[in-house]
This record gives sequence, structure tokens and C-alpha cells, in this order.
Amino acid sequence: MSVKNFFLKKEFSISRLFPNKTFKKNIKINDVKSLNIAKKNDLSFFDSIRYKKSAKNTNALFCITTKNLINELPKKTEKIIVDNVLVELARVTKLIYPQSDVDYPDLSLKNISKLKYKTVKFGNNVLVGKNVKIGKNSIIGSNTIIEHDVEIGKNCIIGSTVVIKNSLISDDVVIQDGVKIGQKGFGFIPNKDKNFKFPHFGKVIINKNVEIGAGCTIDRGSVDDTKIGQNTYLDNQVHVAHNVKIGSNCMIAGQVGFAGSSNIGNNVSIGGQAGISGHLQIGNNVKIAGGSGVINNIENDQVVMGYPAVPLKEFLKIKRNK
Amino acid sequence: MSVKNFFLKKEFSISRLFPNKTFKKNIKINDVKSLNIAKKNDLSFFDSIRYKKSAKNTNALFCITTKNLINELPKKTEKIIVDNVLVELARVTKLIYPQSDVDYPDLSLKNISKLKYKTVKFGNNVLVGKNVKIGKNSIIGSNTIIEHDVEIGKNCIIGSTVVIKNSLISDDVVIQDGVKIGQKGFGFIPNKDKNFKFPHFGKVIINKNVEIGAGCTIDRGSVDDTKIGQNTYLDNQVHVAHNVKIGSNCMIAGQVGFAGSSNIGNNVSIGGQAGISGHLQIGNNVKIAGGSGVINNIENDQVVMGYPAVPLKEFLKIKRNK
Amino acid sequence: MSVKNFFLKKEFSISRLFPNKTFKKNIKINDVKSLNIAKKNDLSFFDSIRYKKSAKNTNALFCITTKNLINELPKKTEKIIVDNVLVELARVTKLIYPQSDVDYPDLSLKNISKLKYKTVKFGNNVLVGKNVKIGKNSIIGSNTIIEHDVEIGKNCIIGSTVVIKNSLISDDVVIQDGVKIGQKGFGFIPNKDKNFKFPHFGKVIINKNVEIGAGCTIDRGSVDDTKIGQNTYLDNQVHVAHNVKIGSNCMIAGQVGFAGSSNIGNNVSIGGQAGISGHLQIGNNVKIAGGSGVINNIENDQVVMGYPAVPLKEFLKIKRNK
Repeated sequence: MSVKNFFLKKEFSISRLFPNKTFKKNIKINDVKSLNIAKKNDLSFFDSIRYKKSAKNTNALFCITTKNLINELPKKTEKIIVDNVLVELARVTKLIYPQSDVDYPDLSLKNISKLKYKTVKFGNNVLVGKNVKIGKNSIIGSNTIIEHDVEIGKNCIIGSTVVIKNSLISDDVVIQDGVKIGQKGFGFIPNKDKNFKFPHFGKVIINKNVEIGAGCTIDRGSVDDTKIGQNTYLDNQVHVAHNVKIGSNCMIAGQVGFAGSSNIGNNVSIGGQAGISGHLQIGNNVKIAGGSGVINNIENDQVVMGYPAVPLKEFLKIKRNK
Repeated sequence: MSVKNFFLKKEFSISRLFPNKTFKKNIKINDVKSLNIAKKNDLSFFDSIRYKKSAKNTNALFCITTKNLINELPKKTEKIIVDNVLVELARVTKLIYPQSDVDYPDLSLKNISKLKYKTVKFGNNVLVGKNVKIGKNSIIGSNTIIEHDVEIGKNCIIGSTVVIKNSLISDDVVIQDGVKIGQKGFGFIPNKDKNFKFPHFGKVIINKNVEIGAGCTIDRGSVDDTKIGQNTYLDNQVHVAHNVKIGSNCMIAGQVGFAGSSNIGNNVSIGGQAGISGHLQIGNNVKIAGGSGVINNIENDQVVMGYPAVPLKEFLKIKRNK
Repeated sequence: MSVKNFFLKKEFSISRLFPNKTFKKNIKINDVKSLNIAKKNDLSFFDSIRYKKSAKNTNALFCITTKNLINELPKKTEKIIVDNVLVELARVTKLIYPQSDVDYPDLSLKNISKLKYKTVKFGNNVLVGKNVKIGKNSIIGSNTIIEHDVEIGKNCIIGSTVVIKNSLISDDVVIQDGVKIGQKGFGFIPNKDKNFKFPHFGKVIINKNVEIGAGCTIDRGSVDDTKIGQNTYLDNQVHVAHNVKIGSNCMIAGQVGFAGSSNIGNNVSIGGQAGISGHLQIGNNVKIAGGSGVINNIENDQVVMGYPAVPLKEFLKIKRNK
């Protein structure tokens, strides 16, 4: 699939973004990226020792960080030392992507042109934005909205009253009625009377053979993307927050919630109403019982249960000892 | 904002509402209100000692109550003694507001008239009812429905497939895709074969700078209103039941649920999937961990966790002692 | 109400479905049904000793099962012994009901014909499929979609942006905004790279006087039906999975989730955010506290709480002993 921007992007040199800092060279910033995917001429950010490993190996030319973290970054990366990394990140990304902090409704939507999508079947009143691509043999249900620049693969079945924006969807994906994909996530800098809305210029990437149940909401990434791996199935009313990455062949039961930026491995199964806290690493082949609250990383092949979720054996022992 | 009724209201004298009771004076009832906001000529109700303080200070001229509670009410208030306060309240409010116990779809909806809303931008197929007011520079997304008499302030961004009814929404509010606001709450008098639906003639009031995530549902009040304070942000799939009042500057994470009539203070943060029982008082600056179940009042400045939610220190101690 | 099929059904003889098996007689299969409702000439399936009682009394002529379960079935039933019952069941039902494993959007939808439904009131842009029946005095809200063959009774109030498919809805039912009913449930045979989607050729049956809150999702049955009994009320954002049966006069609070195939008795009340695991039997007059996780059967008249949910007395004892 294409690498594309869904948001208006303005060009800035590093000195214009940080006028009070001095830089070796005043280079035009290419993009803002997470440490692990930043390329040369990208600006990145490093706000927690948790991301030490990514920091060490980053290719970012510039990195917003704090005084106590600078030694984790490579020599080649220019450190931009600030008091609060996320506040500065929000400020500069709002300059670069000025329209990414609110979901402005797409006013380019039109009733679908059957001439343009000859090999796609549409229900009634389907609204499609500019530059949308839909693969052949896909079917789109009634009253569904597909906003500008979204790409949908071949043989997809999209239900009714669905809204998709800022998303790249692969082949053979099924999305049931009422699903909302690509909305801005829950991110802001708290501020008395008026919070500062965190720009969300990432997207949602849904891979082949995924199925998404009715009423799910999948937010787009802030700096990074939200991703759902091949052949992963989500039941109804699942909430996937910004930047979450779910691996392939996962089974996510109804009303599960993922807080932001967690990484879920492959072949993971999660029971109904379980909650996964933010910024966690969940390994491959993990089983999480329904109703559990996961607040720590989980290694490969574990079966966990409870709140906080602990390995099943430990959970049963706790219950026995009561 | 205006004080307005969204529901057809019929006029009744107190004797016509309670033909088997005798009253000092047969006065025309002005409205039915909660104890704390009732004015002269209003009818109120008092069904639990929990509301003792409001009872003592009420200005209501009439109050439906039970025998054992009458001494808590001021002398000036005429007591209407019944066996079951809520049953009687439901009966008389159904007489006064006969159409408030079901969400009759608004049949006055029309495709928006661009002449009428010159300074507002609309997506496609936006449906707007009678007497709707929308402030300038607001944008309304496609397939969204705004029912009769709703007021929306300036600079609001309302997403797609949203339904808003019986609501007053202030300036600079963001409402994401698929949100439903102002529906009848979950209230009824249980009755074998056919429950008696509790009238809901309250509304939803959303203050400045609020943000509501995709897929949230916010029910209108029954007798009282449901309120969300300034600069409070709700993540996706949050459920706010009837009469709930959330203060300002709160952060409510995904899939949190509020049962009816609870009061949440200012600067409260609530983690994902937490649940707040009905009729509670949650203080200011409270932090409630994700997944917690709150079933008791919480004082100011507490950090709580668990089910039932207890102060964090106590929660950790319980876990350590196992 | 009529017994009707919402899905294209192909005719098969038993030998064509199982070409490698030999049968006493090569009979044309009438339908695929659960053990307890199968009639002569039906094919059934028996995969767990949990259903021993239904197996003993089944009228099915053929039954897919495993070697170790055959003795529980009556003599008259021909046993089709396989390694994995659900895999074989999925394979043959996909042959018989080839379009039931995905929610293909109904392309027969049309803007409602006022001539056809003279006694029904409609909002704007209501889309109705072929052979839909709607009883008199019912009202259907704007942007709502009622797919082919759905039946709705008299005096029903259906909100806006609702989607109903594969469902039979009785009289005096209220369905609030944004509800999705009759979607395919969360069922599949896991398969690396591409799961096998389990056919769902059941329906949703909603009885008289039911009320369904905003944003609920109610999946249709797979082989069996999903049912909601008379006068049962569901609050907002409840998730009812495939094949669940809820009795009459139940009160289900907000964000409750039911996993597949559980049976809930009459007069059951369930607090907010509780979860009910799959394949359970919950008795009559049971009370389940908010936030509970029910993972075992519950007998009549019990009050339960916690995770796993235990009788209230036991729950309080556990808490005291900590």
C-alpha cells in the first residue's frame, strides 16, 4: 500500500520549530516519527526510559527529550532538551499538521459515482471522499461514509452506517455495521479551562482477512499508526486506542478495551471485557481471560487472569488461599 | 443558554394530580423538579434519607414522600405521603409530560436549509429539526441528526452519524462520530408483563470545550438534567446514564460507565472500563484506576482502585497480604 | 410469527454432505438444528457432554459427534463420527447456507414506499428491504435500515441510525438510536492466515414490550436463534452474542456483555458492566451485581457478585477476611 499523508502538512526547518535552540545545521524537517521508524532528517521524541532500546538505535536526526535521557541517544542525533517532551511534541506537530488535532468532517464527500467504481457494489446513500480507492468485488453497505484518501482492498465487505477515515484497509477484510475507524484518539495536554488537543497525524492500517465486529471503534495513531494484523478477528464493541498494534491471528472478544500504544503479539486470545493498559508489551500466544485487567507486560505463551492479571496458576492459588 | 422544555407539557393543578389527597390550596403546578432546584409552585419528591440535606432546604411547595421522611422537609412544603415515591412520581410526570417516556423519533427533521444556517458548514444529508440553533463556524458531519429545539454553540465540530436530541451544547465542543446524546435513560417501574416507563423530561447540558469520543452514549435526565462540565474529555464508548453530573476538567477514559444520578467533581480522572455506581458523590481531584468498580462515595483528592474501589494504599496492602 | 429463513438455502442429501460416510438411507436433509429443537430429517451436532440431556431426547435423524459421545444419543439417530464436530458442522452448514457466514449488505434496500406502509410513520431516509413487514402504529426513525424479510410488530418505536437484519420483532418494542440487531456473531474455526468463518443462519427474536438502549449490539444465532423475552429491558451499550437467550422481565444495565449461547432465566437483574461467560445456565430471579464476571452456572434466586461471581454472602466474607 501507499505511504500517504491524510493530513495537510506544512514545511518547517528545525530552527523555525525551535527558535530558541541552536542547531549545527538548519535542516528542513522531513517528518515527525517514533524513534524506531524515524529516518534521516526526521524529528523524533524520547520521553521515557521504557523506549531506551529504540533510542539507542534511532536514525532520527533530531530528538526532543529531557536532560536525564540524552545519554541513551546516539551521537549523530541532535538532542533538543526540554522540560516536558509531550508538550513540546504537541506544539510542533500542531504547527506541522495544523488540522490533525480535530476530526474535521470531510466536506468533499459525494454520493458514489458508479462510473468510477465499476467493480464495486454499493448500498444506498454511500458517501465517498476524494481520492478514495476501493478494490474490485468489494461491497459497501448503505449510509456508510468513506472519507478522502482511504484505501480499501479487494473482496472487502463493509457494513452499513460505518465511518472510515485516515485508514488503509487490505484485501478480504470484513467490517460489520456501525464500526468507526480512524478517528482522533484520546490525547491531550491537560490545561485548566482548555486542554491542548494532541495532533493525531497517524493512520489505521488493517491487514488481510481481518474481521471487525459491530460497533467497534479503532482510533488512528497520534505520531505512529494503529495496526491490526492479518487474520485477527474483533468481536462487537471493542475499543482500540491510538497507536495500538495487534498482531496476526488474534481473537479479541466483545467489549475488550485497549489503551493507547500497547503492542499485542501474534496468536493472542483475549476474553470478553478484558482491558489492556497503555504502553504494554503482550507477547505471542498469550491467553488473557475475560474480564481481566492487564497492567503489566506479559511474556510469550502465558495464560493470565484477574485484576491485575497474573498467570493462571497464581490466580487460582490466590483464590484458594482466601 | 435558554431554559427550555423539549417535551410537550400539560397543565395540572395539584388536586387533579392527586385527587384522593386534600391540599390547603389547589394551586397549578409550575413544574416537577429535584429538591435542590425546585422553586415555589414546583412539585418535588423525596425518597431517600440520602437527600436529607436537599430536603431541609427545598423551596418546593409540594413534595411526594413517605411517612418516615416527612420530618426532614420544611414546614412550608406540603407533604404528599405515599407508599412508593417513585411510582407516584412516574404516574404524575407521565400526566404532565405525556411524551417523555419514549424516544419518539422527530418527524420534523428536514435536510438542512443553507439559507437558515449561513455561517455553519454541513456535510451531506444532515437532518435538522424545528427550532434548532447552531452557532457560527460550527461544522456538522454527514448523516448526522439534530432533533428539534437542540442548541449548539459556536465553533463546535460534530462528527458523522451523530444523533443529538433534548440537549444544549455550548461553544467549542467536539463530538466524534457515532455519538448519541439525549436519549431516554434506563428508568422504569418494574411490572410483570409490562413495565411502566419512567418519564424523562430532563435534558443534556454540555459545557464549553468538552470533547466526546466516538460511540459514546449520554442519556438525558429524568426529572433533573445530565451535565458535563467545561473542558471535560470523554474517550470512546463511554456510557453516561441519566442525571449524571460530571464536573469540569475531568478525563474519562474509554468504556467507562456511569450509572444514574451520580455527581462527579472537578479534575477527576477515571481509567478505562471503570464503573461508577448510581447516586454517588465523587469529590474533586479524585483518581480512579482503570477497571475499578466504585460503589461508595469518594472524598476529595483520593486515589482509588479495585472492586469495590478502595484507596490505592489499601488496595496494594490487600494484594501484598494474599 | 412466521418461521422463516433469512438466508439462501441449498438442498443436500446426507451422503452428498458426507461423501466418505455410509448411511442406512440417503435422505434429503431438511435443516440443521440444535439437539433440542431438531425434528425428523434434521441434521444436528453434539460436541460436549454439557448437552447430554438434549442429546438423549433429540429427534434428529443425523448427528455429527465424536466417538466418545455416541452412547448418549438415541438409537434412531445416525451418528456421524468426526474428529472435530464444529469444524465439520461449519463445513456442511457453509454448503447448505452459503451466504450466512458474512453480513453481505442488503442491496434490495429502497427508500420506503409510503403506499406500502400506510399505517406506519417514517423519519427521513429510512431504507427498507424486500418482504419487510411492519405492524400498524409503529414509528421508524431517520437513517434507519431494515433489511429484507425482517418483521416488526405493532406499536413499535424504532430510533434513528438503527440497523436491523435477520430478526423478528414483536409488538410494543422500543429500540433506541444506533442499535444494531441481527449481525453475524463472533464465530470461526481458527486457521493460520485465514480463519474459516462459521455460518450464522439463525436469527434474532425479540418479544413483546422489550426495550433496547442506545448503542446495543445483538448478534443473530449461528445454528440456533438469539432471543430476548417479553418485557426485558436493556440499557445502553449492551452486547448480546450469538445464541444467547434472555428470559422475560429481566433488567440488564449498561455495558453488560453476554458471551455466546448462555441461557438467562426470567426476572434476572444484572448490574452495569457485568460479564456473563458463554454456554452458562443462569436461573430465574438471579441478581448479578454490577461489574461481576460470571463464569459458572447460577441456580434460581441467587444473588452473586465478584470475579468470578460468587454468592453475595461469600463475597462479603472474602472481603472481610483479607
